[in-house]
Amino acid sequence: MARARNEERRTEIVRAALEVIAERGYRGASLSAVAERVGLTQQGLLHYFPTKEALLVAVLEERDRWDTGGGRGREHWRLDLLESLVEYNAMRPGIVQTFSALLGESVTEDHPARAFFTERYAQTRAHLAAVLRAEFGDELPGGLTPERAAPLLTAVMDGLQYQWLLDPEAVDMPAAFRDFLALLREGRVGVA
Amino acid sequence: MARARNEERRTEIVRAALEVIAERGYRGASLSAVAERVGLTQQGLLHYFPTKEALLVAVLEERDRWDTGGGRGREHWRLDLLESLVEYNAMRPGIVQTFSALLGESVTEDHPARAFFTERYAQTRAHLAAVLRAEFGDELPGGLTPERAAPLLTAVMDGLQYQWLLDPEAVDMPAAFRDFLALLREGRVGVA
Repeated sequence: MARARNEERRTEIVRAALEVIAERGYRGASLSAVAERVGLTQQGLLHYFPTKEALLVAVLEERDRWDTGGGRGREHWRLDLLESLVEYNAMRPGIVQTFSALLGESVTEDHPARAFFTERYAQTRAHLAAVLRAEFGDELPGGLTPERAAPLLTAVMDGLQYQWLLDPEAVDMPAAFRDFLALLREGRVGVA
Repeated sequence: MARARNEERRTEIVRAALEVIAERGYRGASLSAVAERVGLTQQGLLHYFPTKEALLVAVLEERDRWDTGGGRGREHWRLDLLESLVEYNAMRPGIVQTFSALLGESVTEDHPARAFFTERYAQTRAHLAAVLRAEFGDELPGGLTPERAAPLLTAVMDGLQYQWLLDPEAVDMPAAFRDFLALLREGRVGVA
């Protein structure tokens, strides 16, 4: 019972953090701003999340759960759903900024979010390879296998986010992502 | 004369910073470690570079000058030189980590490196579009123009760096980059 209340409280804090991020961006999302929103002292919040990084990782995990359809999981992804995901991301710069900023930090020595991103990438590459295999079979243009194309698909999504966050007028993120899919589908012109 | 000495001192500091980064990584490259190496107090160093971010931006600018062949400039880049650049990057994780970490920070509000990265991306996209046009003409696979493929080429390079920094055993960055070039060249099989 205490455990269930604890879980409920954590969920409430993660949702509040998501709201604060959407309103104020990565830097504005301080632990004290989140604590205030849920009616806790900062000390009280630290009981649930010992660091800002731990809270932000929980926010990104929660987003992943939503984006992958909760219980259904990523095995149901298709390339056109990825396209919609990128379009959706273009409407929520706060969370994309949080992902991108924390990813940047995570490559530094002993960063608390390093394990999260390393593990997430391994999963993402495996899932995207399965998505690509379902759409293209074992061979993609350029002689690539789904396993070799998956890191590229992942890299394009992440890399475009930085360009778009820095200069949204210059980079149409969803259009650029569709361009990459066109490149992948090139070898299939006239096949369908 | 004083001006020339000043420039010389700045260059010396930037080189020292590059060494410290190579040895100790992004987090280890503190202003005090760099100051010590060039025989300055931290206060003395601040006269040349008022913040750690300003120093790191100067390091990245210096790297860009070297990588683009100094005076010759980026207009001489070719796709196979880009391939060599990615191979070279795979041997210098310290500077790649510094680029990636600072890029991550730069997307947050009012960050001092934001202008540097925004401007650098605009230049990079323009230069890469010229490189792609020289190699492919006006139309690439998937019906893309060089201008539409350039942000993708940029995104792949940046995105692969994060995956490689986090898990160098799992991601062969140079091989993955060559895979992307194979994708771009797909439409030209049998043409050459």
